[in-house]
Amino acid sequence: MRAILIGSGTIGSAVKRALEEKGHEVVSVGRKSGDYQADISDPQSLKALFSRVGSFDAVANAAGDVSFEPFEQTTDEQWANSIQSKGMGQINLVRMALPFIADHGSFTLVSGVLTDDYIHGGTIATAVNHLVEGFVKGVAVELPRGVRINCISPTVLTEAVAYYAYFPGFVPVPAWEVGQAYLRAMSTPITGRILKLHKTNC
Amino acid sequence: MRAILIGSGTIGSAVKRALEEKGHEVVSVGRKSGDYQADISDPQSLKALFSRVGSFDAVANAAGDVSFEPFEQTTDEQWANSIQSKGMGQINLVRMALPFIADHGSFTLVSGVLTDDYIHGGTIATAVNHLVEGFVKGVAVELPRGVRINCISPTVLTEAVAYYAYFPGFVPVPAWEVGQAYLRAMSTPITGRILKLHKTNC
Repeated sequence: MRAILIGSGTIGSAVKRALEEKGHEVVSVGRKSGDYQADISDPQSLKALFSRVGSFDAVANAAGDVSFEPFEQTTDEQWANSIQSKGMGQINLVRMALPFIADHGSFTLVSGVLTDDYIHGGTIATAVNHLVEGFVKGVAVELPRGVRINCISPTVLTEAVAYYAYFPGFVPVPAWEVGQAYLRAMSTPITGRILKLHKTNC
Repeated sequence: MRAILIGSGTIGSAVKRALEEKGHEVVSVGRKSGDYQADISDPQSLKALFSRVGSFDAVANAAGDVSFEPFEQTTDEQWANSIQSKGMGQINLVRMALPFIADHGSFTLVSGVLTDDYIHGGTIATAVNHLVEGFVKGVAVELPRGVRINCISPTVLTEAVAYYAYFPGFVPVPAWEVGQAYLRAMSTPITGRILKLHKTNC
């Protein structure tokens, strides 16, 4: 499998390791680093990426930002930038890559625990995560040529100590386990699924 | 209760009747009709509305458009307009009204059956409905002064015969019953809830 992997942070690095351990080829894409450069919040950069990158079997995304801000202080810019990055950025990633991805290929997007659990200052994240998960569920029935799509929902990472204060009582997950969830989504026949790294009744 | 009601279509009219039958005062808002004019996709028109409309206890929304299009043919404009109308339009409605709504007031937004069931050409609707429902769930824990928020998820309306062909096997709901769901959301102490007018295991 030749996989395009967007994002080179803690999750992206773990996904790269998980894929390479199984012998898959990983093409790394970052805003400034990686084998190719692109920014998911810029559709033109995605269009340029997929016209140059050659054939591929999978796209895995581990990029996308949202703003954290108490709801009453959220600004138009914070909403717009968050929608444009983690929300429409991932949707546009699928739109731009779909004409080029191999038959029976797969997309793997990312949401997060704030879909299911709510914190002060987390409303934008919760809303945008829902947008992403809704897109994945809806588009799964529309994708042609056996192309699949799933979404990984990590909780706070064991490695992200700086975030612990915002997630009291959230049991962290190590990045390697998130990498395994990506590998599972990309390597098994599931589609339209949200793979959650946390326990929830949602 | 003095309620601001946005939208004068089949659902808006049913909500108006349900509220007035219980003796509530309804201030109707439409793009071109109603007691006041505003467009939820235009934040400035919302800001102007709430600076003029006086005190109120509730905002009920029955407006917002999304595009229906096979996923591979969806355009940037269809995505942007749908996010801007039914998605950010409803989020901005809450943002703009919140400084003016009475203590213990309520917001009632609208999503739809395509959150839970998927049709060809429905991916934008599914994604935007999820955005709205995620916002409602997330912001419910952040609203000050006892203000509540809920969301009504109607299935295809009995009155909307022209839509039947797109919803095969979806049992329609009469608009009056949707109006009762709004009345229930506005009159009982629930918050962060999605009231579904259809049967689902989601």
